[in-house]
Amino acid sequence: MSANTIDDLGLVNPLWVNSPAALLSSDARILQFMLDVECAWMAVLVEGGRADPAWLPVVTEACRVEHYNLAEIAREAQGGGNPLIPLLGALRRRVGETSPGAAARLHVGATSQDILDTALLLVARDVLTELRADLNGLADALERLAREHVGTLAVARTLGQHSLPGTFGLRAAQWLAGVVAAERQVADVLRQLPLQWGGAAGTMAALTQFAGDHALVLTDALAARLGLALPVAPWQTTRWPMTRIAGSAAEAVAACTRIANDVAFLTRPEVAEVAEPQVEGRGGSSAMPQKQNPVLSVLVRSASFQAPGALAQVVAAAAAAVDERPDGAWHAEWAPLRQLLRLAGGAASLTRELAEGLVVFPERMRANLDAAGPLILTERITAVVVPLLAEAGIPDGAAQIAAAIADTRAGTASLPDLLRAALPRSVVSDALLADLLDPVAYPGQARQLILRIIADRGDSLS
Amino acid sequence: MSANTIDDLGLVNPLWVNSPAALLSSDARILQFMLDVECAWMAVLVEGGRADPAWLPVVTEACRVEHYNLAEIAREAQGGGNPLIPLLGALRRRVGETSPGAAARLHVGATSQDILDTALLLVARDVLTELRADLNGLADALERLAREHVGTLAVARTLGQHSLPGTFGLRAAQWLAGVVAAERQVADVLRQLPLQWGGAAGTMAALTQFAGDHALVLTDALAARLGLALPVAPWQTTRWPMTRIAGSAAEAVAACTRIANDVAFLTRPEVAEVAEPQVEGRGGSSAMPQKQNPVLSVLVRSASFQAPGALAQVVAAAAAAVDERPDGAWHAEWAPLRQLLRLAGGAASLTRELAEGLVVFPERMRANLDAAGPLILTERITAVVVPLLAEAGIPDGAAQIAAAIADTRAGTASLPDLLRAALPRSVVSDALLADLLDPVAYPGQARQLILRIIADRGDSLS
Amino acid sequence: MSANTIDDLGLVNPLWVNSPAALLSSDARILQFMLDVECAWMAVLVEGGRADPAWLPVVTEACRVEHYNLAEIAREAQGGGNPLIPLLGALRRRVGETSPGAAARLHVGATSQDILDTALLLVARDVLTELRADLNGLADALERLAREHVGTLAVARTLGQHSLPGTFGLRAAQWLAGVVAAERQVADVLRQLPLQWGGAAGTMAALTQFAGDHALVLTDALAARLGLALPVAPWQTTRWPMTRIAGSAAEAVAACTRIANDVAFLTRPEVAEVAEPQVEGRGGSSAMPQKQNPVLSVLVRSASFQAPGALAQVVAAAAAAVDERPDGAWHAEWAPLRQLLRLAGGAASLTRELAEGLVVFPERMRANLDAAGPLILTERITAVVVPLLAEAGIPDGAAQIAAAIADTRAGTASLPDLLRAALPRSVVSDALLADLLDPVAYPGQARQLILRIIADRGDSLS
Amino acid sequence: MSANTIDDLGLVNPLWVNSPAALLSSDARILQFMLDVECAWMAVLVEGGRADPAWLPVVTEACRVEHYNLAEIAREAQGGGNPLIPLLGALRRRVGETSPGAAARLHVGATSQDILDTALLLVARDVLTELRADLNGLADALERLAREHVGTLAVARTLGQHSLPGTFGLRAAQWLAGVVAAERQVADVLRQLPLQWGGAAGTMAALTQFAGDHALVLTDALAARLGLALPVAPWQTTRWPMTRIAGSAAEAVAACTRIANDVAFLTRPEVAEVAEPQVEGRGGSSAMPQKQNPVLSVLVRSASFQAPGALAQVVAAAAAAVDERPDGAWHAEWAPLRQLLRLAGGAASLTRELAEGLVVFPERMRANLDAAGPLILTERITAVVVPLLAEAGIPDGAAQIAAAIADTRAGTASLPDLLRAALPRSVVSDALLADLLDPVAYPGQARQLILRIIADRGDSLS
Repeated sequence: MSANTIDDLGLVNPLWVNSPAALLSSDARILQFMLDVECAWMAVLVEGGRADPAWLPVVTEACRVEHYNLAEIAREAQGGGNPLIPLLGALRRRVGETSPGAAARLHVGATSQDILDTALLLVARDVLTELRADLNGLADALERLAREHVGTLAVARTLGQHSLPGTFGLRAAQWLAGVVAAERQVADVLRQLPLQWGGAAGTMAALTQFAGDHALVLTDALAARLGLALPVAPWQTTRWPMTRIAGSAAEAVAACTRIANDVAFLTRPEVAEVAEPQVEGRGGSSAMPQKQNPVLSVLVRSASFQAPGALAQVVAAAAAAVDERPDGAWHAEWAPLRQLLRLAGGAASLTRELAEGLVVFPERMRANLDAAGPLILTERITAVVVPLLAEAGIPDGAAQIAAAIADTRAGTASLPDLLRAALPRSVVSDALLADLLDPVAYPGQARQLILRIIADRGDSLS
Repeated sequence: MSANTIDDLGLVNPLWVNSPAALLSSDARILQFMLDVECAWMAVLVEGGRADPAWLPVVTEACRVEHYNLAEIAREAQGGGNPLIPLLGALRRRVGETSPGAAARLHVGATSQDILDTALLLVARDVLTELRADLNGLADALERLAREHVGTLAVARTLGQHSLPGTFGLRAAQWLAGVVAAERQVADVLRQLPLQWGGAAGTMAALTQFAGDHALVLTDALAARLGLALPVAPWQTTRWPMTRIAGSAAEAVAACTRIANDVAFLTRPEVAEVAEPQVEGRGGSSAMPQKQNPVLSVLVRSASFQAPGALAQVVAAAAAAVDERPDGAWHAEWAPLRQLLRLAGGAASLTRELAEGLVVFPERMRANLDAAGPLILTERITAVVVPLLAEAGIPDGAAQIAAAIADTRAGTASLPDLLRAALPRSVVSDALLADLLDPVAYPGQARQLILRIIADRGDSLS
Repeated sequence: MSANTIDDLGLVNPLWVNSPAALLSSDARILQFMLDVECAWMAVLVEGGRADPAWLPVVTEACRVEHYNLAEIAREAQGGGNPLIPLLGALRRRVGETSPGAAARLHVGATSQDILDTALLLVARDVLTELRADLNGLADALERLAREHVGTLAVARTLGQHSLPGTFGLRAAQWLAGVVAAERQVADVLRQLPLQWGGAAGTMAALTQFAGDHALVLTDALAARLGLALPVAPWQTTRWPMTRIAGSAAEAVAACTRIANDVAFLTRPEVAEVAEPQVEGRGGSSAMPQKQNPVLSVLVRSASFQAPGALAQVVAAAAAAVDERPDGAWHAEWAPLRQLLRLAGGAASLTRELAEGLVVFPERMRANLDAAGPLILTERITAVVVPLLAEAGIPDGAAQIAAAIADTRAGTASLPDLLRAALPRSVVSDALLADLLDPVAYPGQARQLILRIIADRGDSLS
Repeated sequence: MSANTIDDLGLVNPLWVNSPAALLSSDARILQFMLDVECAWMAVLVEGGRADPAWLPVVTEACRVEHYNLAEIAREAQGGGNPLIPLLGALRRRVGETSPGAAARLHVGATSQDILDTALLLVARDVLTELRADLNGLADALERLAREHVGTLAVARTLGQHSLPGTFGLRAAQWLAGVVAAERQVADVLRQLPLQWGGAAGTMAALTQFAGDHALVLTDALAARLGLALPVAPWQTTRWPMTRIAGSAAEAVAACTRIANDVAFLTRPEVAEVAEPQVEGRGGSSAMPQKQNPVLSVLVRSASFQAPGALAQVVAAAAAAVDERPDGAWHAEWAPLRQLLRLAGGAASLTRELAEGLVVFPERMRANLDAAGPLILTERITAVVVPLLAEAGIPDGAAQIAAAIADTRAGTASLPDLLRAALPRSVVSDALLADLLDPVAYPGQARQLILRIIADRGDSLS
């Protein structure tokens, strides 16, 4: 390890350093995919009778990233503005040693952008596929939590304050709803990724020169071979494939950080309703031996501050497209697209780990709910009691209850005592009052909503 | 007009000041939609036998924005953090003057967020619907341009430099492809907008208290009445509906600015391949009487620098969601969502005007192509001639052509002369050389790609 | 109030709807400042003997925003791409009714951008000046809190977990440090705002035609009259004045939201270490009568999700500058610049209100500290005890303490008991152990840092 | 080279892959700086008599990045959320092999954030220092261009259209003005970078335990040793140092892209007023042998779409600070801060290369100016002729000139002919008309402004 290199290994990216997304989107993988595209094109030419079958093994052998000096290609990429130019030169030299004919035929009809855009799509496909798997695994874990805690009472919070009784099951189901929506978006995008193939100016001129009317047959065959959608036309300056990849990654980040935000709060010692999975090597501190940090939610949360800016970068590049290949906007897209894929991949993988091992403390949830006290039931009390009072000819029921609330907040007495004192037993019996003061009796549709969210997920799985 | 007001009328937003999007998303419209949602809820209660039918006309009459002081409600919104709180107070007072029972029943089971989120969806629906219409009108105009100029030769440009012969028809078709993709995305989003209805903490507790097991029946009826999708569950802290609206608006902006970028360049006097529609009152200058500015593309382009940041704002808010209603992230979403809708609406409406009146100068396109000279054909020349030379036993064809190119660039002589001198007539006849130097002879799949893009659009229209 | 208008009154912007920033940056104020610049220019011409003194009262009278139809000017701004064009037309018509000579002389040597850029600077100056006042008021309140609570123990939290004893005074002082830094940045920017005056293409050609070598004398006089910095040259396409305004506003937002983030957490009922000022009309809920929401910190926090995107918009516009006046990038700057000014103004004004009325609960802070328990002292215990044990020939002190921590976390026994059992009294006396377990005995430099922060502020005030 | 690694070598970052900024901010450099900070701290302790002088060489030897496995540390960073934790472990093990006492004393009183924040400042200082050098070199080149072309006529363009005569010297001087402003901002930030040192919770508790009242003396000594500003207090959650670094980097990017935008346009073949330096290995294409791409401006421009989003990320992180160390916002800052530094460093270095080798074609500038024709002089013609006509009793001079302009635009005749026909020779002599139609005669203050910009730069250099 020397300081005279620009190798980055994720030192400042603990969110995704160990994620499949990082590995699947490394410089080396991008280089390999560029080689794969060149190789697949040669295979298509061979199949179409437009290249010598003997060339394919030569090209295939040469199209292995191991043969190339990544650092050198990266450095030389500056000359022409993109890495394909030096890579193609090196590839041609290597192939040409064995087979000059193959070297000349390589890349026929293609341009740098065709190779690099398509390679980035293949990178995105890999990362998004892994992302789907992690989102599905996360959804499984959340579904289990929602089912298991369908009746686990917990105080609901709005604007940071206690509002009403709720259940932890519904909270987990809401987390699930966001993950399911994100997973569907990712799946949609995966179905839409179209091959980019247009030649130097998007007209397929060189390919037509070479293959005549077969040009589009060949590109369709290439799309099929690479498992990409058939393109209607090249999309060199129509960058919706890139903005949709970016949008789906950002939505996945938001679905995960939304969970991490809750967990980061719920693990605070004053709340302590959940704990992150206790795993050796997670959560330590360099200074304080006693600390156990909620490092998974901390790292996932870190994505919430980065993804919006990265998405803005991709969209800014798309919105600046011009001509038949943009003079800067295209080049601006590559790094932020990868950053977004990594943020999403890292967030999903750590959130999955978090959800799969989340430790839930129902007793503490109940204790916090009880500590919230009967004030969180005043919505219901008002709704039930005022009409009863009105029926009984007592017109100012709402004011009475408001006074009891104010006195409770002021510490004068407890709400139950104040209400008992204020409300005639003939109208509000002791039993009714007890029921009104019981959080269990006010669950709303929590159970039903959990089931709907789970059922909705099932619909998309079947 | 006094300076003691904060009324904004779009003075610094010439992009969208006259657009339907601005009108459809004004403060007054948002207020009206909040009232509409309260009124629709009362209608659902009446239909469901849970409110006195006599109340509905009272509420309907009261739910007209004209009755309320928007400025006052806006100011008072600060107290509780959102505008529904003062609006509901005012509405209840108004209704209560006639019908205290109706006033009490209003908003039953609802919370501020239910009303405001749903009202914003209705705003978004209106703007996106108008946006679709403008994108479709724009697409019609682009399709006409593509068809009309299917054979209009124009030089293609990559990284700002002349690259190959192309056609203006293909350029217009590529513009169309982006617009079609954006329109589909908007249409998708319009199909997905779900009612938000969860009560104070997303459990529908008050509604269940009021309506028991009918709670979900009532909310489904409300969704149907408002023309929104049935929600699986409340999405108070699962903000994908908002991020998707924002994402589709940003994609529409990018599809439009991508066109405006080209037009802004093509109308430059050194290029002059197109002109913006010449309309009285468009394009003047305060200082220079002779100037005719491409003001439509200028204004549309201004959206390209704003939409990415606005999208980042919406996504940042979604990614920060927490609890059962966020303590700030929810409140951060309203303004940028509206900004994005207006940017998209303004951009689409001006780009449509631009495309519908675009003046095209085919002769100038041809002149620019001719000025580009035969160098833009060297891709083809190399592809054709090198193999012929090789067949003829001349191995260094590529080097010879490269030398001719270099000499041409150095100004030694013209490429045709240099090539004629360098290439034996026996291998490259005069007729072949003439063909190789004719840009008309190198169209690639331009025509076919235009037809594919148009056909693809038809598929989605049928 | 009708729905057929685009008047916006801040309905979806409760953060700033009532702030001076909103009023100072309204459309009407921008229009007034454009008129002010035109009028000041006429005054400079008169002073310089280049305009008839009789014209000045005519122009002055005409340069009142009340005379103009803002909505109409906003709508007509679309034609030429900026609002000065229709405004100047209207102004000339009005002045021309009385004095055609004055009408012809108005705006001599100027271009739209000179007027609008300068007017926006004047808007920014007003808002930033008010912002400074609010930041200074906020700093006063924070300084008081820091002094008053210099000894108020409170648990410090890192990554959401209890870490060490701290003081509320230090927390308030840290809030102060951020506000002081932001205030200095704003003050720096205020000193730097340079007049923009370049004429149609930044060459001052028309002005030179009119005034010869006096051109620069006149523009310097205009800068002085308007209280702006003398410009080295026009900055039509060198937008650092705009990015610095934006940057300082964003830093002010960050300084405020950083406070609001803490308050939003500290007011949560599980924590309850502070409360927002209890003011009639602040913090109510539409559904839950008992709720008291921390609405100030909620609204301030909403700025934290908007300011980054708005700053990105201003910087994107600056980075896209081109030519002698950009074709879209200039137009993109106006709205986000104003949004940032309003976000900063609103955030500072509400954070000031928050700090001035913040209710602090030292007992609850102490209770939370005590609940954190002796584990938060293990850093010190380890530092003190391990060397003592080592001196006494007991080598594995750190392991023993770690074991006690682990057992405490596992609930086996209390840390004091475990330590007492593990550590020989000959090495660690009861008195020493008691001291080590007393959070009061571990304040670090909290007091000194508070004084340094306050003193540093004083340095800049004196 | 294998695909089973996440090593990134800048393959998708041709803008900065070869820049000093990349090298100075590599993962290895960050690691080295973290080691440097630990080592400097030990040196301070030794100097202060608080550590055994014999330990220093041991620690110094151990604090070389070569000893550590960067990939492993990066992977293990996920466990505790930051890379210092595993690095410190490895460092302690290494030092401990030789000197257990030194191993125990290492890092005393510090926390992860102290080391990592300070290391990132040192990285930023190196990059910003190099950035200043490149901005100064760039400014030198621009000053030369401005001086050399002080009289080189070129058409000025606003909103993409020809507006007035200008000079290339003034354009270069305006580029210079932006670079000078950016360089000053960078220099300001470099003076302000304060050491971060607060211990676990920002109270310096452990350090006070260790060194008593000398705690602040020691930290001040550390700041001095590292060449950083003395901090008033720790800034763990008061992130203005980071936002200012980011802001100055973004401003540098904008100053450079503003130049590249012009060059990208001016090198277009229809304009051809300048060319990028012709250097072997720059500007080639993978498909078109004739192409010479303006790759420097293309790559620099790519920064304009990335910097705004990266700045938004840093500001978003700062605005989300909370507690005594944030639970995610801190972690979100590292990667975008580095990205911004690299974007600025790459942009400045390539723009310098661009400016130093820029090829200027004054003849082509003149040709474009002449092609713009006399219409660009109508501002002056109107200003001069209308008063003369008025004096001569011809009231509708402006209308006459407007008619001549309209007829010229319509192609009826040339502007000189039309004016000559319309204007009596007694009022406008042939000589005057010729002067009015001569672009040389309408330079405005171009020369003076160039000198002012250069002089202003000199003021800051002296």
